[in-house]
Amino acid sequence: MKELAILEIVSDDLQKVEQKMRSMGEGAYGPLAQAFLQLLGSGGKRLRPALALAAYDLFRAPIPGDERTRAIAMAAAVETLHNATLVHDDLIDNALVRRGSTTLNAVWDKGATVLAGDYLFARAAGFAAETGNIRVVQLFADTLRIICEGELRQHFSSRQWEQPKERYYPRIFAKTASLFASATRSGAILAGASEAEEEALSDYGRSVGMAFQIVDDVLDYTGDETVMGKPVGGDLRQGIVTLPFFYYMQSHPDPAQVLAGLSGSSNGNAGGVDEIVAQVRDSDAISQSLDEARGFAAQARADLTLLPAGPIREALSDLAEFIVSRHV
Amino acid sequence: MKELAILEIVSDDLQKVEQKMRSMGEGAYGPLAQAFLQLLGSGGKRLRPALALAAYDLFRAPIPGDERTRAIAMAAAVETLHNATLVHDDLIDNALVRRGSTTLNAVWDKGATVLAGDYLFARAAGFAAETGNIRVVQLFADTLRIICEGELRQHFSSRQWEQPKERYYPRIFAKTASLFASATRSGAILAGASEAEEEALSDYGRSVGMAFQIVDDVLDYTGDETVMGKPVGGDLRQGIVTLPFFYYMQSHPDPAQVLAGLSGSSNGNAGGVDEIVAQVRDSDAISQSLDEARGFAAQARADLTLLPAGPIREALSDLAEFIVSRHV
Repeated sequence: MKELAILEIVSDDLQKVEQKMRSMGEGAYGPLAQAFLQLLGSGGKRLRPALALAAYDLFRAPIPGDERTRAIAMAAAVETLHNATLVHDDLIDNALVRRGSTTLNAVWDKGATVLAGDYLFARAAGFAAETGNIRVVQLFADTLRIICEGELRQHFSSRQWEQPKERYYPRIFAKTASLFASATRSGAILAGASEAEEEALSDYGRSVGMAFQIVDDVLDYTGDETVMGKPVGGDLRQGIVTLPFFYYMQSHPDPAQVLAGLSGSSNGNAGGVDEIVAQVRDSDAISQSLDEARGFAAQARADLTLLPAGPIREALSDLAEFIVSRHV
Repeated sequence: MKELAILEIVSDDLQKVEQKMRSMGEGAYGPLAQAFLQLLGSGGKRLRPALALAAYDLFRAPIPGDERTRAIAMAAAVETLHNATLVHDDLIDNALVRRGSTTLNAVWDKGATVLAGDYLFARAAGFAAETGNIRVVQLFADTLRIICEGELRQHFSSRQWEQPKERYYPRIFAKTASLFASATRSGAILAGASEAEEEALSDYGRSVGMAFQIVDDVLDYTGDETVMGKPVGGDLRQGIVTLPFFYYMQSHPDPAQVLAGLSGSSNGNAGGVDEIVAQVRDSDAISQSLDEARGFAAQARADLTLLPAGPIREALSDLAEFIVSRHV
């Protein structure tokens, strides 16, 4: 499949990343080790570590050796950091299902779940240190800071239905695109790329991440619950305002009526939200949002022009296209 | 005061550490910045960063310059990491007061408190990276891993009243002594000390940390609530079994009666626990526990013999003594 070219190119290394992450369980406290295996087993496309490895491979021939070990540690750091944030996000959102699997907080109490996420942060930091590159460590520390601050802003702006659309972009950058950008940038750093190449790869990661999150936000309205492994309309129900809702409100003849429906939902009237979710799904807001995602994907492809041509650059370009055509 | 010699020796640098930590608020999201200032303002003795700086100063004359900047970043990393774990601990324990001040989780909801702690982990990692020393980063990552794993073990062994006493020591190493050991070791690493000196300082930090936590656990039974800023007997009430309780049970003529009192407490009969706390406080378990703390303090002083003599070594030795004579 065309969309998987990038995953195929780095597949050997991705397996090593998987092994490295699974090795966290060795010697760890039993219940913790079990929880990791469940977490890692529940999948995910491993897009972020694949991007980190591909960025690295743009500049380095994929030969075995010490440098390769460092690239694997870098990719494991990216994915472990991502999983740590997911563990805490699911706890915060009281989400019981992710990717069709039971979340950790569905089976563990608050305290144990907080600590398990913290443990993953520690392991992510350890993997980052294994790269031996202090700039990579600093980059991941900065990224976690940006993610947390973004999540906190989102948390405190929950149910602010009338916030300006401009707030959406920095929020999804913080939440998603920042880690995509750090994944690709760290690959460039570790490979010893030039400053311009580093910036280009960071820009590419950022653009891909923005497109990815917009599509995610669209799928939250349009997705098939059985394929997604989570209920539709979850964002709005949690008071999180995303791009489709902004567009829907912009063109709605009577926004006050929508707001009334939503504020009614806070009194246990979930029907109001379900109705609005259905209206957003059937409105032009979806295609308008997807147009924006396609814009970011086009930008991602443009970001690649400076970089070394070849099958990896081709696969990165294809990935940007895939991201806006995915249905899950 | 004799006990504060170490804090006085590094006081100029400690102020810079304080400034560095306060600077986290600059440019940060408003509510987050406010929360930090409150957190940092609620004090604490800053023992851990003082130990890190003193360990560094054992080998380096305290002159201004780039190297000093790195030592300050290291000390800020230690204290920020410590505060991050406190934010999550208070959330997990539902503690509303620490050091006489309101905890973050007393005013923020679960989600915001989790994210604030995560943010502090990110800043701690960033400070660690500022040392420019990958071994220091790896050490702090390992320490956070040990802390989380220890807390998780404690969490899952809650209310296991009959657990063997041997479980206590690795638990307080993980919870407290590991960070003390990393504080002093990181000072040695950054100062370029020999491997033997590094080990000696790590051993010293570990011994001081063990003594510190045992005294903390004693004070949880014997402390003055108004001075401590938290209620007495909190550990037992939370189902956490500490050294005084182990000694109390060892010499109790009828342990089954104590267990009956404690299991009754799970049905809302807090009186059972209060009674047992009073009995532990008035028993020999207190002096037996303090004897052990004194043993660790003596070990800490012995750990120093390899290290360069002078006022700093003297102050470190005095600190070990102070720790076992403190009342708060």
